[in-house]
Amino acid sequence: MLRTNTCGELRMTHVSKTVVLSGWVQKIRDKGGMLWIDLRDRYGITQLILEEGQVDAALLTLARSLGREDVITAQGEVIERSSKNSNIPTGEIEIKVGQLHLLNKSKTPPFTIEDDTDGGDELRMKYRYLDIRRTPVRTALELRHRLSIETRKYLDGLNFLEVETPYLIKSTPEGARDFVVPSRMNPGEFYALPQSPQTFKQLLMVGGIDRYYQIVKCFRDEDLRADRQPEFTQIDCEMSFVTREDVLQTFEGLMVHLFNKVLDVQLATFPRMTYADAMTYYGCDKPDLRFDMKFVELNTVVKDKGFPVFDAAELVVGINAQGCSEYTRKQLDALTDFVKKPQLGATGLVYLKCNIDGTYKSSVDKFYSPEELQKWAEAFGAKAGDLILVLAGAPDKTRKALSELRLHLADEQGLKDPKVFKPLWVIDFPLLEWNEDEKRFFAMHHPFTSPLEDDVAYMNSDPGKVRANAYDMVINGVELGGGSVRIHNRALQKQMFSILGFTDEEAQNQFGFLMNAFEYGAPPHAGLAFGFDRMCAIFSGKDSIRDFIAFPKNNSGRDVMIDSPSVIDAKQLVELSLAVKK
Amino acid sequence: MLRTNTCGELRMTHVSKTVVLSGWVQKIRDKGGMLWIDLRDRYGITQLILEEGQVDAALLTLARSLGREDVITAQGEVIERSSKNSNIPTGEIEIKVGQLHLLNKSKTPPFTIEDDTDGGDELRMKYRYLDIRRTPVRTALELRHRLSIETRKYLDGLNFLEVETPYLIKSTPEGARDFVVPSRMNPGEFYALPQSPQTFKQLLMVGGIDRYYQIVKCFRDEDLRADRQPEFTQIDCEMSFVTREDVLQTFEGLMVHLFNKVLDVQLATFPRMTYADAMTYYGCDKPDLRFDMKFVELNTVVKDKGFPVFDAAELVVGINAQGCSEYTRKQLDALTDFVKKPQLGATGLVYLKCNIDGTYKSSVDKFYSPEELQKWAEAFGAKAGDLILVLAGAPDKTRKALSELRLHLADEQGLKDPKVFKPLWVIDFPLLEWNEDEKRFFAMHHPFTSPLEDDVAYMNSDPGKVRANAYDMVINGVELGGGSVRIHNRALQKQMFSILGFTDEEAQNQFGFLMNAFEYGAPPHAGLAFGFDRMCAIFSGKDSIRDFIAFPKNNSGRDVMIDSPSVIDAKQLVELSLAVKK
Repeated sequence: MLRTNTCGELRMTHVSKTVVLSGWVQKIRDKGGMLWIDLRDRYGITQLILEEGQVDAALLTLARSLGREDVITAQGEVIERSSKNSNIPTGEIEIKVGQLHLLNKSKTPPFTIEDDTDGGDELRMKYRYLDIRRTPVRTALELRHRLSIETRKYLDGLNFLEVETPYLIKSTPEGARDFVVPSRMNPGEFYALPQSPQTFKQLLMVGGIDRYYQIVKCFRDEDLRADRQPEFTQIDCEMSFVTREDVLQTFEGLMVHLFNKVLDVQLATFPRMTYADAMTYYGCDKPDLRFDMKFVELNTVVKDKGFPVFDAAELVVGINAQGCSEYTRKQLDALTDFVKKPQLGATGLVYLKCNIDGTYKSSVDKFYSPEELQKWAEAFGAKAGDLILVLAGAPDKTRKALSELRLHLADEQGLKDPKVFKPLWVIDFPLLEWNEDEKRFFAMHHPFTSPLEDDVAYMNSDPGKVRANAYDMVINGVELGGGSVRIHNRALQKQMFSILGFTDEEAQNQFGFLMNAFEYGAPPHAGLAFGFDRMCAIFSGKDSIRDFIAFPKNNSGRDVMIDSPSVIDAKQLVELSLAVKK
Repeated sequence: MLRTNTCGELRMTHVSKTVVLSGWVQKIRDKGGMLWIDLRDRYGITQLILEEGQVDAALLTLARSLGREDVITAQGEVIERSSKNSNIPTGEIEIKVGQLHLLNKSKTPPFTIEDDTDGGDELRMKYRYLDIRRTPVRTALELRHRLSIETRKYLDGLNFLEVETPYLIKSTPEGARDFVVPSRMNPGEFYALPQSPQTFKQLLMVGGIDRYYQIVKCFRDEDLRADRQPEFTQIDCEMSFVTREDVLQTFEGLMVHLFNKVLDVQLATFPRMTYADAMTYYGCDKPDLRFDMKFVELNTVVKDKGFPVFDAAELVVGINAQGCSEYTRKQLDALTDFVKKPQLGATGLVYLKCNIDGTYKSSVDKFYSPEELQKWAEAFGAKAGDLILVLAGAPDKTRKALSELRLHLADEQGLKDPKVFKPLWVIDFPLLEWNEDEKRFFAMHHPFTSPLEDDVAYMNSDPGKVRANAYDMVINGVELGGGSVRIHNRALQKQMFSILGFTDEEAQNQFGFLMNAFEYGAPPHAGLAFGFDRMCAIFSGKDSIRDFIAFPKNNSGRDVMIDSPSVIDAKQLVELSLAVKK
């Protein structure tokens, strides 16, 4: 080993020991007679000291020739520092260098290896191996490792088996777009990379592996939005002989375990909310419960008072921004502009200030008397000092806009505390979504999701009404994972495919292996999957997943470090029986 | 939960408890008044009993209608069995059924779900989800899980970080053939699936992640031999600031840990053998040390006695098959036929029987006196009762044939005990192999392997002589893993590519990202990778890896269960800017 200790572990108790450290030169201070080197490795920084007269002149010359990020090995004695640095754990000691070796020279790095670097995103991606040396990126990867270790520990303790499912599988047009892999040995045929191990984990249930998990890469060839990656990691789980309740308990338990072990945070029992309630009260299916501002519907309160906008609107709905009654004209105009953005498309924003002095001031007070405005305030349970914001229009669009306004206000008010974690389960999602373009239903989750037992009767008569036995885990407004009780009966699965517009032949051709398996004693089963990249970001209170991925791709799906994808040899194309057609 | 207990856990201590079990019907015995059901799940088999008169007639009717592999739930009381079955852990009790529900019907399975099934390989692959229900396959997957858990536990304990490297990387012609993935967003360009995360783990070392591991899928588009899979799993590891010794100690420690925790086997310190010695004494680079039969070279003993074959041969070399002097003419002929197979190509086999009575009998005793034959025996340290077998010819070919003969004899003699584990390190491999077809050197390991320091001087003058700082871990004649100290210096890496016939431009184009990284303070580093599928097989004393893979592909790279690879939609090809050219 080219070291006896790391750069993070030496303390006063080590004083007078002779040690060998290896690492990167973080900084050099040369005061003539004295020279200090900050030596850095994964574990920390330790100060080396060389004193003229006390060490070989050659050693000092070598030390003076060193630059940032050079790799060195130093041997020396641990001594107490005269001026201690309480900002770092090794700040009480330094190493009086006796020997010094240059292991490898470094060119000047294209950006500084500091917590706050001067490197832009593209530059950091291109030199990702240097970016990883920075503490924020390294600790992100360390957190990821810790989460994976603790996830496995918890699930292994509950008798879950990690089973590796294949990466070279079969392309199916339902769902997102597959990445495909041409087969050389079967000309004209392709494998697909899995979008998830869904069908394989279900086959494992049929195979009697009653508790399965896998931390596994998945692939989707989608047009990348910001913070989407073509390859991403799932914690994928499935259980047999269970009800929904068992799955929720088991994976709520996983999350409690992870928060406890990794962050020392104790989570309380997760509340549950139906999809319908989430939409009614928060306008979205992943409400952030770190703050209140629950929607209040005002139709019965505000209609027929002569305000044509509210009278014409199908829904009038608002939120109470507590303590915001002093918002200025300018602030209110900015909120109005926010909801009028084309993405939200509200036509206007009505406000009601519940002034500190007990009076009311509204943008529509020519239509509503103070007594009427007081009724609004009562509907919200608003107090003096609160600000009520109201939107009106078509229900779906209005709720969506109000949801965005709610989140925007929370940002403005600093209500999104990254150290506070508010989880919940959202349950009873719709089974199907109508697609107006294709004039057919799509599975909201996926085609293997079981309808709620009470709703099976509507499968043919009114498919849009059927609720799924599906659930999402949401923390702080982010969907961390989701799953469902699955169909385990061939007839019901066939019916589901038929509702989705598959002919029997198409269903058999694409998913025959699964439907056939259901005929050989498939047990009732249910499961879920977590987005692991996203989970890492949540645990760190970060919005972007990119720093939790060692080697991420950019928004064009390109790895700028290795310059991939790239053109391949003509010989490779011939072997694959393929031609490029631009 | 559709059960209170599993089918493997009930004992006498549970008697009189009411329990609910769920599982598959393994067997039904109907003796009229009494009916027994063997109920099976992942954890074992429990006997259910229904007695006429004691249970509802409807229940009995349902029970009588059940067939093999139906999925049921049964509630009942745990009672002591009158006739106990000591072959199974639950054999002392049975369940007096009170309620019974059919959860899912099964068609008659295409093969029996028994340890010794009547299903052939192809049928078992097609219905892999049924095959997985069989105990031998399930326990193989359980062993795999246990090995992965313990591997992570050990490495995590040593501060190794598991870091996920990307699956969509860049195609490089050096090495085996890549699987490629067309990029829709970059028409005419392709990603490649990794043959190993080699370059990425080296970049992690440059990035200061000084201890990395990953249990990771890798891909090779090779013409499949028996027991090769296009996708396979590696335990991939790398360390910085280490010497070869540190790597050998660390991963010898991993293996000691795994054998101890998983098999309760205590491994002794691993012997080390140079590649040169392995070839000299065992004729192969992965000697099986469960048995002796070390090669003895006889050139100095047998030459110039008038036997033209030996006199003409460059090498005369043999092994001592202890206690085999009574081999019959027929057995010896069979051994001769074995070495004369075209794959081995020996021209003949000379034997020397060291008879029990102290006399010698050889196939060439007209050329050698008893005294001379005794010298042979002495060279081998042979005792009365031993059989010496000798081959002669060109060294490489002769050693290879003798190695095969040695393994063949071990099989015949039952010396390959699957419960005995004899590990070793083979070290100091050649750096390069000359390829006569392409008239150039290839890297024996890969182009990133460092030469031994002593041999660097020969890099230009005599590349074939250079030994690599590379090592393989071998157990029972199987290469379990291998690795090397890596090059971490740009100039040496460039020289290596040049010896391999890369132009500077090709090297920069394909591996520029790595060589550039070496200029920014790359630390000395070394690592290795284990074949995880193979490791599972070794731990089970099995030859084939297939049962240790949940969903394997057949020898044409086809998944016969899901019928993949397959033709994709014309629309997909258009999106990918590709055309199939058969």
